[in-house]
Amino acid sequence: MNKRMVFNFLGQIFKMTAFMMLLPLVVSIVYLEWMNVLSFGIAIAAALAVGFALTLCFKPQNKTIYAKEGFVIVALSWIGLSLLGALPFVICGDIPNYIDAFFETVSGFTTTGASILTNVEGMSRGMLFWRSFTHWLGGMGVLVFVMALVPSISDRTIHVMKAEMPGPVVGKLVPKVRQTARILYLIYVALTLIEIVLLLVGGMPLFDSVVHTFGTAGTGGFGIKADSIGGYSPYLQWVITVFMLIFGVNFNLYFLLLIRRFRAAARSAELWVYLGVVALSTGIVAANIRGMYPTFSETIRHSAFQVASIITTTGYSTVNFDLWPELSKAVLLTLMFVGACAGSTGGGFKISRIVMLFKMMGRELRKMLHPRAVEAVRYEGKRLDEATLHSTASYLALYVVLFMAIFLLVSFDPKYGFTENFSAVAACYNNIGPGFGAVGAAGSYAGYGAFSKIILSVAMLFGRLEIYPLLFAFSPMTWRRK
Amino acid sequence: MNKRMVFNFLGQIFKMTAFMMLLPLVVSIVYLEWMNVLSFGIAIAAALAVGFALTLCFKPQNKTIYAKEGFVIVALSWIGLSLLGALPFVICGDIPNYIDAFFETVSGFTTTGASILTNVEGMSRGMLFWRSFTHWLGGMGVLVFVMALVPSISDRTIHVMKAEMPGPVVGKLVPKVRQTARILYLIYVALTLIEIVLLLVGGMPLFDSVVHTFGTAGTGGFGIKADSIGGYSPYLQWVITVFMLIFGVNFNLYFLLLIRRFRAAARSAELWVYLGVVALSTGIVAANIRGMYPTFSETIRHSAFQVASIITTTGYSTVNFDLWPELSKAVLLTLMFVGACAGSTGGGFKISRIVMLFKMMGRELRKMLHPRAVEAVRYEGKRLDEATLHSTASYLALYVVLFMAIFLLVSFDPKYGFTENFSAVAACYNNIGPGFGAVGAAGSYAGYGAFSKIILSVAMLFGRLEIYPLLFAFSPMTWRRK
Repeated sequence: MNKRMVFNFLGQIFKMTAFMMLLPLVVSIVYLEWMNVLSFGIAIAAALAVGFALTLCFKPQNKTIYAKEGFVIVALSWIGLSLLGALPFVICGDIPNYIDAFFETVSGFTTTGASILTNVEGMSRGMLFWRSFTHWLGGMGVLVFVMALVPSISDRTIHVMKAEMPGPVVGKLVPKVRQTARILYLIYVALTLIEIVLLLVGGMPLFDSVVHTFGTAGTGGFGIKADSIGGYSPYLQWVITVFMLIFGVNFNLYFLLLIRRFRAAARSAELWVYLGVVALSTGIVAANIRGMYPTFSETIRHSAFQVASIITTTGYSTVNFDLWPELSKAVLLTLMFVGACAGSTGGGFKISRIVMLFKMMGRELRKMLHPRAVEAVRYEGKRLDEATLHSTASYLALYVVLFMAIFLLVSFDPKYGFTENFSAVAACYNNIGPGFGAVGAAGSYAGYGAFSKIILSVAMLFGRLEIYPLLFAFSPMTWRRK
Repeated sequence: MNKRMVFNFLGQIFKMTAFMMLLPLVVSIVYLEWMNVLSFGIAIAAALAVGFALTLCFKPQNKTIYAKEGFVIVALSWIGLSLLGALPFVICGDIPNYIDAFFETVSGFTTTGASILTNVEGMSRGMLFWRSFTHWLGGMGVLVFVMALVPSISDRTIHVMKAEMPGPVVGKLVPKVRQTARILYLIYVALTLIEIVLLLVGGMPLFDSVVHTFGTAGTGGFGIKADSIGGYSPYLQWVITVFMLIFGVNFNLYFLLLIRRFRAAARSAELWVYLGVVALSTGIVAANIRGMYPTFSETIRHSAFQVASIITTTGYSTVNFDLWPELSKAVLLTLMFVGACAGSTGGGFKISRIVMLFKMMGRELRKMLHPRAVEAVRYEGKRLDEATLHSTASYLALYVVLFMAIFLLVSFDPKYGFTENFSAVAACYNNIGPGFGAVGAAGSYAGYGAFSKIILSVAMLFGRLEIYPLLFAFSPMTWRRK
């Protein structure tokens, strides 16, 4: 383990964290929120202090980053980011309790959108902006962001990118990691700008357009109204529906579009499964909730919005879906676990893994009838190697075991029953946000005790980073000297 | 597909079903329940008619049974058995609705113990006996029972045994299948007799002792009192606790004890994990429910009983554990999925599969840090081949996907909420019996609609037969001519 390199890298990340907080500081100045300006100032100073302390104390002789270092860097920087990012909330007094602020910040960076706020409309503009900005940063990856911006970070950082990007197989779009990071962020910024413009065109105020776009782009879900997106016009709701779905697609496909390989993009099995699941679920939900809303178009709009919001793990809502019949809620709960496409900003188990597992099951079934047949599993036009199938299956096992463990720990909390505990874990672990019952679209996570809030924060990090980085960062096996 | 052989075999099974129903007919005569005698008489006649029709119409030229035929025979005979076994309940009028009676019979044979009865104490003796006797038959396997008894069935039936016996790897104890079936049933009968004697010694009436032993041996859970085992003495509760655990152990270990290979039996990793999970869970539950019962010994007794009942997937109860705090319920829910040892009469996912998956995950983690290391997974002293690991992982994926599908179908029922639907599916699919809320230890499945009852019956069959047989029996792939 190259500890010097790990801590030096962390130092650079924390310096960049200070830089990231300049934007909400500027927003606070614009809104004349001087207490917020002070809060961000102190937080920036703290981030710089930690950053410089690390880069000065740890000077790496060897700049090589292997898988192990990649995992540890990603895990520790996400924890550090959340600890630092929580400071402004506490200092300005909008979220006086540090554990609550940590929960909210982790929820922001991991693009979960679960909130402990009971009165979001009472928050200051600067803090609302920061909250949503963490979604945008966390969506495509904070470290990928740093890699795209900072030239001093060497090009040997593919392992950091692999550890931060979701999905079973992470590849470079172009030979250079830094170039790949830049292309991804350029697509991300472009889509973000388009959504802001479309929301402005629909009459949404500028501030609302920006924060809601951040929440959509990162598939986060933090809103600024008590009824989330419910108060906006049908046009605005449809724009957000479409963009949630757009940000749930593998960004490699947008790259293929950019380099004009349209046919390759259209052949993606994952894309078609994703769209198929969305269409099917919307249909089932719409049939199930018919009669609850006056018109057919409204029924479809609410169905499509909620389905898109949950499958992309965003978590916005236009209605309180906790009041929907059990079947619709069961569909949404299932979608929570399905998640979006690999290589998107969405969370969950990921469509591509599910497709692979289905192919694996199919092969297993055929093998049971014809034991001597040898068959390869093909995915996205390529033959999948057995190691990838093996990792995907192991990931499923790990995912299930960890889910159970987190559910057991949250059940220590005497406050809520099974519906809340189970859906809270599902919603945090899969980075969605609202669950059912008291933690549903109309509720909040404020009722949980401090222990549960920490456990759920850890669950969000496990979900966003896809388990391994955190597991390695806290395993003695990783830190042992050879 | 050797259809003649499949249907001929089915015919023989149904003839044996008639034979099995002679026992409850005798019990009905003893209790002078003439309506029951008539009911069993008609059901026996029906079983014989179907059985002879099949054996006369289908005369196989080729008696070979491959994996495919094995799966189909097991699936169709279990469905047929349940359809025939439900007849007496309907004819005598104890369960007038045929779908209810089918649910109850499937629940019996699959050793689930989920009941639609709201007044079990009002049932006649003969029917109570039949209900519990189905547990005993289903526990070790109806077809294994037939193979042990009927000499005419050829020795090429290892595929039938493999399809019916639970667990990832089914082996013969001795070279001949029929001998293996006999040895298993001898151990089963011996343990059954010991339990009956121990219950009689504790003052339980003969009828109660026999039916409760059937329920314990098959890890079924049908009782004859509204409060299950709650009304019996602490000694009797402890006897049942210990025997539930005994029947949850892999029967191969008892065979090892019989042939005096004590050290080999004691080295079983699965056994120790099983006992460890039981001890740990009992400890957590006892700590969680302390104060609810007057004495320490009563707390431990109820904790151990409920933990043993759930992990072995029996489903008896001594208290209404639905009133326990969330943590204890979460522990029990987790145990529902864990299940007992492979090769026992218990259901669930099985300890051995979980141990294998953990080993697979461990290897995957080590491989991520040291990509070039090649490592074999060892289990029970042997090197596991990759094909077994692969099947186990595929089974997990299939298990999860099927669980979700059943949960979605049951959510169509507007009657209950998430707690009932989710725990009902967990309890039926894993062959436990009681869930939480209205389907809990103090409730019943009577409230569900006909569609849900059929879906849950199918879930019980999927769980008991470990998915594949039913999947193959209803796949066109299996029936297609080459």
